[in-house]
Amino acid sequence: MTLQEAIKKIKPLDEEAMAYTRARWNTLGKPLYSLGRLEEMVTSFAGIYGDKNPHPGKKAVIVMAADNGVVVEGVTQTGQEVTKIVTENMTKRNATICILSSVSGADVIPVDIGIASDCDNPGVWNRKVKYGTDNMAAGPAMSREEALCAIEAGISVVEELSAKGYRLLATGEMGIGNTTTSSAVCSVLLNQPVEKVTGKGAGLSSRDLEHKIDVIRQSIERNRVDASDPLDVLSKVGGLDIAGLVGCFIGAAACRIPIFIDGFISSVAALLAVRMVPECDPYLFPSHCSNEPAGKMVMDALGKEPYIFANMCLGEGTGAVMGFTIVEYAFKAYWELPSFEQTNFGTYEELE
Amino acid sequence: MTLQEAIKKIKPLDEEAMAYTRARWNTLGKPLYSLGRLEEMVTSFAGIYGDKNPHPGKKAVIVMAADNGVVVEGVTQTGQEVTKIVTENMTKRNATICILSSVSGADVIPVDIGIASDCDNPGVWNRKVKYGTDNMAAGPAMSREEALCAIEAGISVVEELSAKGYRLLATGEMGIGNTTTSSAVCSVLLNQPVEKVTGKGAGLSSRDLEHKIDVIRQSIERNRVDASDPLDVLSKVGGLDIAGLVGCFIGAAACRIPIFIDGFISSVAALLAVRMVPECDPYLFPSHCSNEPAGKMVMDALGKEPYIFANMCLGEGTGAVMGFTIVEYAFKAYWELPSFEQTNFGTYEELE
Repeated sequence: MTLQEAIKKIKPLDEEAMAYTRARWNTLGKPLYSLGRLEEMVTSFAGIYGDKNPHPGKKAVIVMAADNGVVVEGVTQTGQEVTKIVTENMTKRNATICILSSVSGADVIPVDIGIASDCDNPGVWNRKVKYGTDNMAAGPAMSREEALCAIEAGISVVEELSAKGYRLLATGEMGIGNTTTSSAVCSVLLNQPVEKVTGKGAGLSSRDLEHKIDVIRQSIERNRVDASDPLDVLSKVGGLDIAGLVGCFIGAAACRIPIFIDGFISSVAALLAVRMVPECDPYLFPSHCSNEPAGKMVMDALGKEPYIFANMCLGEGTGAVMGFTIVEYAFKAYWELPSFEQTNFGTYEELE
Repeated sequence: MTLQEAIKKIKPLDEEAMAYTRARWNTLGKPLYSLGRLEEMVTSFAGIYGDKNPHPGKKAVIVMAADNGVVVEGVTQTGQEVTKIVTENMTKRNATICILSSVSGADVIPVDIGIASDCDNPGVWNRKVKYGTDNMAAGPAMSREEALCAIEAGISVVEELSAKGYRLLATGEMGIGNTTTSSAVCSVLLNQPVEKVTGKGAGLSSRDLEHKIDVIRQSIERNRVDASDPLDVLSKVGGLDIAGLVGCFIGAAACRIPIFIDGFISSVAALLAVRMVPECDPYLFPSHCSNEPAGKMVMDALGKEPYIFANMCLGEGTGAVMGFTIVEYAFKAYWELPSFEQTNFGTYEELE
């Protein structure tokens, strides 16, 4: 499915299914609307699935892995070989996301969309667009065509998972240097000074943080980034992992699958996705609020309030899979709560 | 255990166990501190249990059920017979808390601490102090002795659960009219105008909300409540359920058990508990943020940030048990994350 085909496939949520679900919530034995956002979530899922009896099924977290040329500028604490190591560890239950995703029983799908070296591990999905991006401080991170190619790779991953019966997705990423690219994209999209949207990532010193900010500033200036053109922003100062995630969000909307945003990097990708394709917005769900300085800011720009505040900033989709727990509670309540009749007390009424 | 005995038993957290746990987190293969509050939670539990290898075990949610004399003033949508019906439903898996607590495998312990009629259900723990409080709009809701008695009943419930091997507790309540009492207590403790801390509870009309506010104002004035004396506030404009929960918080600290605050009513009880016994504070954990107007305000006064924002306001402990899920993720990570050695990439260092 090309990007254009995906966009054409995206439909508004099914209002009839949502009205039915909303009405059924009010037959359950509890004060009206007292489960708040759990009720809204089930109703949205009904609209997404186009099913008045929604049941989310098989779950997966897609982890887009890619390297970033900008690491040669010294913006990270670790070397870029770590991207491949951690990605391969994900196939051996040897990474944090594997441990946390097991709580909700979600499968981990690591995708090589641009790791700097070959990754011959059969557990890693091969969607490599190129061997890492170029150094954005010296020129565009990638061409517009490469960015588009990575977006379509993301769409293809979701398509394949949809065909395999997955009904609930989360997004994650692995890529040394990707808080640098994310801060660059964020600064441009939100028109905020770089220093306000840049943090220490996986553990920079304060001096190195200053340098990281300078590198991002230089990258944005040198590339003459056009804030009104998301694809321009993405290709010039973004990353292949971010582009892949943009594709996941758009692809999920095309395939009618609810998809959970993770932390800073993933939410920057979500913001690019809704700027490019506003129709995908209702398919995207927040999860946690990243501890990166701009974490909350990007969620605000998306108009979505995270469910979980735990000051996490690990990436890999670790916060997004925690969002699956909210889904579990919401559906548990929707399908198992006694009705007003069963509870033996009258109904609650809606009053102005 | 009397209140005074409980207070004497409360010790500060075990710093040695906490230092060990904090150091062990930094040997796990992830950027330092990147699991944020999950790391802090495990460290706190180590300090609470006095065990450098902490493992939370059996879990329960205590639901304090009581009636409130003030309902004769017409401050609720439903009659007070609902308190007993819902409490008994909890013994038959026929209440929302039973459904939601099953997600984390927590037992539900309904406690009759002051239901207005007899409750001969063997599944409901009998700790009845009196048959509902008196109407606080006409005089004190209860005597100081009765409030103390209800606090000690709460302590006794926790003692018994501790003896039965429970290692993790959540708090909940059931009591028609208890957002009215909670708003009264909240208004006095936070020195806020009644209208700022009062909401529609389980579904009042806007006109009835005005009346509820008037009744609360009248109750506070008529009883000449002394804001500097938490027991005075509790007995004059509080409720037996709130008093029981105060006892649960203090009792949990005395028994070295982490205890989760639920929504508005439970957090008002938590605020009373720490005002009376500041040493119990580190044993208390937030869970979700209630959708009642003063929900966030009380959490701020407690200096605790909820983990979950889902606009829920159902009570019964439904938000508190969702906090158990955060515990599950935190301990899953702590005990199962690979070490830096196992992940095959170098360690992350702490830099200034």
